[in-house]
Amino acid sequence: MQEALIKEIVKKVMDTINGSKAIPVEVSARHVHLSEEHIEKLFGKDYNMTKKKDLSQPGQFQYEERVTLIGPKGVLMGVAILGPARNKTQVEISKTDARTLGINPPVRESGKLDGSGNICIATERAVAEAKESLIIAKRHIHMTPEDAKRFAVDDKQLVRVRVKGDRPVVFDDVVVRVNNKYMLSMHIDFDEANASGYKDGALGEIII
Amino acid sequence: MQEALIKEIVKKVMDTINGSKAIPVEVSARHVHLSEEHIEKLFGKDYNMTKKKDLSQPGQFQYEERVTLIGPKGVLMGVAILGPARNKTQVEISKTDARTLGINPPVRESGKLDGSGNICIATERAVAEAKESLIIAKRHIHMTPEDAKRFAVDDKQLVRVRVKGDRPVVFDDVVVRVNNKYMLSMHIDFDEANASGYKDGALGEIII
Repeated sequence: MQEALIKEIVKKVMDTINGSKAIPVEVSARHVHLSEEHIEKLFGKDYNMTKKKDLSQPGQFQYEERVTLIGPKGVLMGVAILGPARNKTQVEISKTDARTLGINPPVRESGKLDGSGNICIATERAVAEAKESLIIAKRHIHMTPEDAKRFAVDDKQLVRVRVKGDRPVVFDDVVVRVNNKYMLSMHIDFDEANASGYKDGALGEIII
Repeated sequence: MQEALIKEIVKKVMDTINGSKAIPVEVSARHVHLSEEHIEKLFGKDYNMTKKKDLSQPGQFQYEERVTLIGPKGVLMGVAILGPARNKTQVEISKTDARTLGINPPVRESGKLDGSGNICIATERAVAEAKESLIIAKRHIHMTPEDAKRFAVDDKQLVRVRVKGDRPVVFDDVVVRVNNKYMLSMHIDFDEANASGYKDGALGEIII
């Protein structure tokens, strides 16, 4: 009994220590957010998209359907579609993907699409020309107002985050995004994951 | 005249300041170093390889010839061969390449091949099975003993390097390699280049 109690206390203390500093890190693979208009164009009028699974951010999910991205130098097939639908289509790829496609989109925060890249999105029935939709997502941390208070950071603040992997890296210019609907998670792309030796369950830490 | 003189003085001062701290950063694309045995196997007995161009490190060069790397999940075509020939074949790829091939080689310093990955290397006439040859190169800095003295570091020391790009990053665990034949240069792979927003001419700085 006493041993179990000690273990529980140790676990609670460790959770408190880790919980105060550690940020779960997730890798965002290439994906598209489609507008209603582009869903209709690519899949047909009154088509019902099929939800596949929920994602870590509450309310966000992946559809069963996939698309092909077409560039002047190459194509990317089987690209995931995330829901719900957005007002404007947004396509997020890595710099490696950009080289494959032969396009050079800017590194941007989600939603900041003015002057971003163009890309053609295809299904077996149609192609949508998505103007000013293509970005390389700027690395960021989703967090709640309570998390922001705990980390002493503000919405839109740029912070430095150490990610512990086989190839430890400190990422500068990581955007903090605060919303009470978010769940604490840092998002990096596959280039950043590969460069830092990322493995599932990796943790990040905001440093001064 | 006076303006030209001032410009020259400013340039010299800046060169001195930068020269004392800045490290040129280069990206190593995937490549192979072949043993004499594998050159013979892949290109034929008494075949003479054709030198294409010198590389930044003195004595190192690239051949005109190229090879294909074959993995269980994919292939990489047109892979560069660097010379001169080595005692043992060494193949250096990125983690992105490793995913394409479907192999999971370790991150290693050049020459440390015990327990590294296997890979099949092909030309139009033959395939060589290169056992314990495949690595993801550990990021490193080539420097002379004079550079090492200036930076106050030793051969094999691990240092942290800030690389200034669109996506600024501090790389931990960068291996210092000192040799009087080397030219000052930090080598990163394409994943690391993409993750740091690398552009030609980027500079790194060793930080405490």
